[in-house]
Amino acid sequence: MTMTLPETIDFEVCQTMDREDPLAPLRDRFAVDDGVVYLDGNSLGRLPRDTPRRVGELVENEWGKGLIRSWLDANWMASPQRVGDKIARMLGADQDEALVTDTTSVDIFKLVTAVMHARPQRKTVLTEAENFPTDLYVSRGVVSLLDHAREVRTVERSRLFDSFDEDVALLLLTHVDYRTGDAHDMAALTSAAHDAGALVLWDLSHSAGAIPVNLGASDVDLAVGCGYKYLNGGPGAPAYLFVVRRLQEELGNPIQGWLGHDNPFTFEPEYRRAPGIRSWLSGSPPVMAIAALEVSIDLFLEADMTRVGAKSAALTELFICLADQRLAGYGFTVATPRDASRRGAQVSLRHDEGYRVIRALIDRGVIGDFRPPDLCRFGFAPLYTRFVDVWSSVDVISDVMQSGVYTSDAYAERAYIT
Amino acid sequence: MTMTLPETIDFEVCQTMDREDPLAPLRDRFAVDDGVVYLDGNSLGRLPRDTPRRVGELVENEWGKGLIRSWLDANWMASPQRVGDKIARMLGADQDEALVTDTTSVDIFKLVTAVMHARPQRKTVLTEAENFPTDLYVSRGVVSLLDHAREVRTVERSRLFDSFDEDVALLLLTHVDYRTGDAHDMAALTSAAHDAGALVLWDLSHSAGAIPVNLGASDVDLAVGCGYKYLNGGPGAPAYLFVVRRLQEELGNPIQGWLGHDNPFTFEPEYRRAPGIRSWLSGSPPVMAIAALEVSIDLFLEADMTRVGAKSAALTELFICLADQRLAGYGFTVATPRDASRRGAQVSLRHDEGYRVIRALIDRGVIGDFRPPDLCRFGFAPLYTRFVDVWSSVDVISDVMQSGVYTSDAYAERAYIT
Repeated sequence: MTMTLPETIDFEVCQTMDREDPLAPLRDRFAVDDGVVYLDGNSLGRLPRDTPRRVGELVENEWGKGLIRSWLDANWMASPQRVGDKIARMLGADQDEALVTDTTSVDIFKLVTAVMHARPQRKTVLTEAENFPTDLYVSRGVVSLLDHAREVRTVERSRLFDSFDEDVALLLLTHVDYRTGDAHDMAALTSAAHDAGALVLWDLSHSAGAIPVNLGASDVDLAVGCGYKYLNGGPGAPAYLFVVRRLQEELGNPIQGWLGHDNPFTFEPEYRRAPGIRSWLSGSPPVMAIAALEVSIDLFLEADMTRVGAKSAALTELFICLADQRLAGYGFTVATPRDASRRGAQVSLRHDEGYRVIRALIDRGVIGDFRPPDLCRFGFAPLYTRFVDVWSSVDVISDVMQSGVYTSDAYAERAYIT
Repeated sequence: MTMTLPETIDFEVCQTMDREDPLAPLRDRFAVDDGVVYLDGNSLGRLPRDTPRRVGELVENEWGKGLIRSWLDANWMASPQRVGDKIARMLGADQDEALVTDTTSVDIFKLVTAVMHARPQRKTVLTEAENFPTDLYVSRGVVSLLDHAREVRTVERSRLFDSFDEDVALLLLTHVDYRTGDAHDMAALTSAAHDAGALVLWDLSHSAGAIPVNLGASDVDLAVGCGYKYLNGGPGAPAYLFVVRRLQEELGNPIQGWLGHDNPFTFEPEYRRAPGIRSWLSGSPPVMAIAALEVSIDLFLEADMTRVGAKSAALTELFICLADQRLAGYGFTVATPRDASRRGAQVSLRHDEGYRVIRALIDRGVIGDFRPPDLCRFGFAPLYTRFVDVWSSVDVISDVMQSGVYTSDAYAERAYIT
């Protein structure tokens, strides 16, 4: 969506934008009656209204009454693939290419290890120095396990295109930078990697559910993503992984657990890996958490991801515009790309006192978060954030700065802000 | 507990045993009002009555209203260690030696990999041919990832003591055999492994929560266990792992995720592993599922594990005695050790038509399960199984055999029995 905002933006303009928003009805499908302007859905998504009922039903009826029979009768066993297929639809992938399993960290481990093991003639994982820490930690862990010639090569973001050589086995990148919201050009980088004979693994934790992702159209090989950020699966929701069909034979899950076996219930002593994506299961699926995630994924499938992306672009555009007009004078600078096609659904503002500012905002019901050294992050999860929320947040930021309340001693101590 | 059963056992004798059972009041803390005789708690434990309330509170209040703030305000971040410490108390381990994380498969992968990586001069994982399939699959996966000289050596159960040599890095065993209920002598095998310079990793999935386990007294190095069997954590509950303090420096988690970092919220590019057991975290904790598991662990801490073990011994003794008296004539043989100190809380009966028998029993409200080739498994989870349930189950088995209903065509098809 290309957006032209009116020259003068006021509360009424924002109300009009909400009235004209085709996704506006979805907000009521979330528990939003708390007076909070929640701009941290990029870290932990809001609760869908239907989730407590669904989780309650699973716990009380399927588990409590169905007991062991529910593995089949309530389709627990099929849930990692069923919800994986739904996520695949969200992300422009095919059936049997995605699976809900484990955590983002474990899934990155599985996929990086699989590539390095399958293609030993290439020794290098290429990534950027600013990648999300888990992606760096996990991939370095993998190369230290394998033999000593392997390495994780970190380069500056701007040098990625020039950094391929015949030693690169895998390009490992997070699609949207968690600090700045800067979005990589997925198709172009994937293509560059392929030209160099490398595979790509995209971490979609800060993009899926926020902006359009089309793994098929971008010819992506591998992907992982988080279930509890934009996907609203609840705290510690399981992650998902994607393996394009053409690689499903070549790459093997290094954590060979019984549920990745072709037939777990024959209890054979030898591992025979399951066909297709199911071989990427290891242990038993976290059934409760998958059920919670599914409620939210179903909302995304109602929403249409093109509209979701357009709304993210409009919300962030509005915030940037208001920040320019009303916050620049307080020392904030916009760290997020101004080209909507280059950013996720978050806007980060740099400020020397950013930590204190965020603490003061949280106390006033505007929940964003802080990332070192100086980034105030505001996430605009498109399913439940209104344009008037953007207006309100800028109002409160402006008040906090004008009153100077953020300089209070109460905000000196560096407690965690998750 | 040594048990002497009266020569003539009838329903009244079982009622008396229930009246005298100090753990009897705990049954009402589970959702048991379903008329089912549930003898599959070794596969999926029953629902504690308090779990729906606790999960609902977490979902609706902590997540729905507390949002991102609950990572600290509701102590989500500390939950893997808090519940890990409680499990450590159950198992005779110390604080900061256990952690709730990932699945049993992933935890076995982490620990086997850590040992093989830390002690490369020894090339062999020693295990038994009849180990639980996941333990075999995962450990073979680990050695195939590392270099080719490594191997998983499987020997017959009876030959374990004679199979140590200077090449064995790790003895990997499941404490209680999932088929027969046969319990290894944990202290003796651990001691033999130590004498040979090897470490031990015990899979407690079929013993913890069923019989007394004392990791400290047995000088155990490493352990893992399942959360959803005897521990009643719910379908797909997370697993736990144990690393004895003296090895916590030497062994490192191969899946280096951000939550195992010394300070995840500084988002440093370099991995600095957390002190103590926390370094075995990889991704974000499955908060909902940990909360569900904690409800049940708290019940075990009320119960006293010595009493739990005594009741398991008594329940299984009663079943074996009744099986001898009333079922042997139908072609059943007891596959489980008759010495109570040598078995878990399950009894397995061999029968050529075992699969059909179990299907027929399930239809009549007695839920056990079947494991190939011919094992009817009956689990007697000690917190909620009554002595009268043992009586009833034998009654129904006897009826099914006498009526021949198990020979019905309805039970011919080999559907999964999980």
